[in-house]
Amino acid sequence: MPRHWHMISRPARGIVSRSRFSTLSSAAPPQATDATQQTRQSVHLPRTIASLLHPAQGGQPDAEHVTIHGWIKSIRRMGRISFAHIIDGTTSFPLQAILSKSQAAGLSTGSSVRIAGTWKASLAGTAQQSELLAEDVSLLGEADPTTYPLQKKFQSYEYLRTLPHLRPKIPFNTAVLRLRSYISQNLTSFFAKNEFVQCYPPIITSSDCEGAGEVFTVSSNEKDSKGHFFKSPKYLTVSTQLHLEALAAAVPRVWTLSPTFRAEKSDTHRHLSEFYMLEAELSFVETLDPLLDLIEDMIRQLVSGLASSRVGNEILSLSGDLKPQLEARWEGLMQPGRWKRLAYSSAVEDLQAAVDKGEKFQFLPEWGANLQSEHEKYLAGLYNGPVFVTDYPREIKPFYMLPTPGDDRTVACFDLLFPAVGELIGGSLREHRYEELIRSMKSHGLILAGDDSEHAGLSWYTDLRKWGTAPHGGFGMGLDRLLCYLTGVENIREVVAFPRWVGRCDA
Amino acid sequence: MPRHWHMISRPARGIVSRSRFSTLSSAAPPQATDATQQTRQSVHLPRTIASLLHPAQGGQPDAEHVTIHGWIKSIRRMGRISFAHIIDGTTSFPLQAILSKSQAAGLSTGSSVRIAGTWKASLAGTAQQSELLAEDVSLLGEADPTTYPLQKKFQSYEYLRTLPHLRPKIPFNTAVLRLRSYISQNLTSFFAKNEFVQCYPPIITSSDCEGAGEVFTVSSNEKDSKGHFFKSPKYLTVSTQLHLEALAAAVPRVWTLSPTFRAEKSDTHRHLSEFYMLEAELSFVETLDPLLDLIEDMIRQLVSGLASSRVGNEILSLSGDLKPQLEARWEGLMQPGRWKRLAYSSAVEDLQAAVDKGEKFQFLPEWGANLQSEHEKYLAGLYNGPVFVTDYPREIKPFYMLPTPGDDRTVACFDLLFPAVGELIGGSLREHRYEELIRSMKSHGLILAGDDSEHAGLSWYTDLRKWGTAPHGGFGMGLDRLLCYLTGVENIREVVAFPRWVGRCDA
Repeated sequence: MPRHWHMISRPARGIVSRSRFSTLSSAAPPQATDATQQTRQSVHLPRTIASLLHPAQGGQPDAEHVTIHGWIKSIRRMGRISFAHIIDGTTSFPLQAILSKSQAAGLSTGSSVRIAGTWKASLAGTAQQSELLAEDVSLLGEADPTTYPLQKKFQSYEYLRTLPHLRPKIPFNTAVLRLRSYISQNLTSFFAKNEFVQCYPPIITSSDCEGAGEVFTVSSNEKDSKGHFFKSPKYLTVSTQLHLEALAAAVPRVWTLSPTFRAEKSDTHRHLSEFYMLEAELSFVETLDPLLDLIEDMIRQLVSGLASSRVGNEILSLSGDLKPQLEARWEGLMQPGRWKRLAYSSAVEDLQAAVDKGEKFQFLPEWGANLQSEHEKYLAGLYNGPVFVTDYPREIKPFYMLPTPGDDRTVACFDLLFPAVGELIGGSLREHRYEELIRSMKSHGLILAGDDSEHAGLSWYTDLRKWGTAPHGGFGMGLDRLLCYLTGVENIREVVAFPRWVGRCDA
Repeated sequence: MPRHWHMISRPARGIVSRSRFSTLSSAAPPQATDATQQTRQSVHLPRTIASLLHPAQGGQPDAEHVTIHGWIKSIRRMGRISFAHIIDGTTSFPLQAILSKSQAAGLSTGSSVRIAGTWKASLAGTAQQSELLAEDVSLLGEADPTTYPLQKKFQSYEYLRTLPHLRPKIPFNTAVLRLRSYISQNLTSFFAKNEFVQCYPPIITSSDCEGAGEVFTVSSNEKDSKGHFFKSPKYLTVSTQLHLEALAAAVPRVWTLSPTFRAEKSDTHRHLSEFYMLEAELSFVETLDPLLDLIEDMIRQLVSGLASSRVGNEILSLSGDLKPQLEARWEGLMQPGRWKRLAYSSAVEDLQAAVDKGEKFQFLPEWGANLQSEHEKYLAGLYNGPVFVTDYPREIKPFYMLPTPGDDRTVACFDLLFPAVGELIGGSLREHRYEELIRSMKSHGLILAGDDSEHAGLSWYTDLRKWGTAPHGGFGMGLDRLLCYLTGVENIREVVAFPRWVGRCDA
């Protein structure tokens, strides 16, 4: 039978005072109308280690008698006393607890504990300002050292990928979980501040946005007479863009952070079958510049916030030799001043000039062909930072893009190239004129000659151009790739808790 | 060729000053390190109507010459001048523009416009404090009155469901889009404040959390020799709970707002095949009370914030006769004081007492059977507000629930029942003990006799109990059902932009 809070929170027990709750007491609940203004926690939950080690107001924490929960990171037995380092995932820094020999019995790396005790200043010269003098120790869950899979200090990424359910416990992975949460929260604020509406476009859809992607099919044992659940075959979304465009015809600025899917056989360090994409769509923008400005500001304020955040500092601290390189990356993204904006045609000229000077590319740069990863990395290096390449040839881009004003050979689109990793964000203005859109769908082979009725299942999308159409544009960013860049993690499978790629869908 | 911002932003053109940007000028970009402290917008985007009608500081807006974009809500032609009501979805209130006869030519309900002009005080006695005296009007996109589908004022919900791509333009639906965004932002803040980590559990999975749900199967044309993309059949998640439990073993408080899927043939106003679920999981909680406290606080601070928000007021204003009822609902959720917490056994006694007093139920209440919707609504009415019913019989609940301390016939779980709508949230403590979990899986038929190796594909889940297991619990809330309750919308298909249910997956 599990123990209960009321058993250990009774003052009569002598070791736990109310102060182990970092919040208001139940005798004086917060006024409901003030709840949104509170910066403190509003509910009674077990105190976290972060709240002890990093008290919000700075200086000493507000508690002398505390109860903490966590997992043993390490334990040193020194005769009559033991020093245990406890983590609970809320901070990378362990809490040091001092235990008696009997209190330490049975504890080993990975086991979970509840410790009540006195939180007091450490001896001078120790790294931690305070430590927990244990009075009552409960072993909640053992971790048999002979079988616990995370015992060893150095395990291969490949091995850890077979343990997606356990590897979040590794401190760097825990910090990445918190980093993702930080980014999500930061972007939510950023878009709200800029009057964007956060939307939730559908996951199951009949549209294949790019017109060429490999899609996952969704089916069910519940079938109609034709063998379908939804009357016809349906797929997992490859991009929410088309649906966002419909929503941007109601509210002028929309964004989403949505799962997207590609059934590609790519077994690379940059591809997943399931990944989170941040997509935004803006009505009433008529050039690329407002989109690029928005992206610069989004990334710049995100990284600036990160650099002064606790989780940012923890990521750096846990990065070892990579720390200076990461700091340089972050610094590069925080610099004021516009990022380079370069037309595709000029980019090709840059690449060809490089070839003339002896640069060796596997693929020769040529107008009309897509930029290869090697080209993208060269350009980001050449301009020493993020580079927007704009106005690619129409033939190599999807049907929905607006032609570049004054040049029908290209479309008003862009890719944002990052040093070392290449493309991170892509976007465009959208063709908002009905006749021109139909023409583009025909020239891209989406509408067959003579078939003007259904528009390849996209008549709802072409409909948007029939009544009150407006110039608009948007972009998409792979969130997991951004995480890779910010953490220096090379393989995208290491920044996603439960990664899915061809042949692998563990847990 | 589209017009460009620089064409209309040149001061030389005389009608547009810099002040149409609600933000800093490009000559003095914000310091990157200060960006996170800004409350004003950080980028240059076309000014919204909300920023004019509801200036952030109160009082008069900060602009005399402005350019706005939007859609014509209505237009009245009065001889030499016309009064146009313009909406852009950022507020339910239309902006009034005064146009000359020639400026108004070709404008009709639904068409999109850009209007530059002078923003000045209206004549006394008019509803709006200021209005826009048009100087330059551009028709961006026509809306032919003879074909525009949203022309008529009263259309059936069924008809509008055939236009999921257009119906977001209807003011109430636009407000619901913004309400959803408000809720998402509010909950993001609430959970961050309470030290929760926002997580993104996988969508494609091999687990069927409830052990009985109808699932969607995910497949691809890209197949291995056995016909699978992921080596074996995979499904769309029905709940992220099991994966959240793994993450809660690394960070003690996790939450997600994630799409979930059920391939149910239910053609009701309460069911969708694809819906967003808020799920949270907390390590180190050993009774239900902290979970119920958290839920109360979450809902109470959400509704309190909503009641004092602009979007909240707009929802009320747009609700017509329903407004008093909605206000009463919201008021009910904001009241201080604990919501009723009632054990299932007592609930059944209440229901049986009601039957004795002549209450007619379609299903007779009986210990051991699930509560029917009629029972749930009766209980919520009996206690005049939200009611937590706890500790249901073990046999009618999933395998992962912890037995009620002291009573092995029931499990430590709860449903939160709302007046009028019934169950909104469900949760439980989880069985965190390895042997007991295996026993429960066997008694629920998930593990067949003699098959102890694979644990029905859930060996990763049982693994979590092997090393450092800890008491934990969590809950899930259907976000779309909450939206229904808060807006008084009866059919869940009306609060989701692109609803999917059996036989229907439009656009």
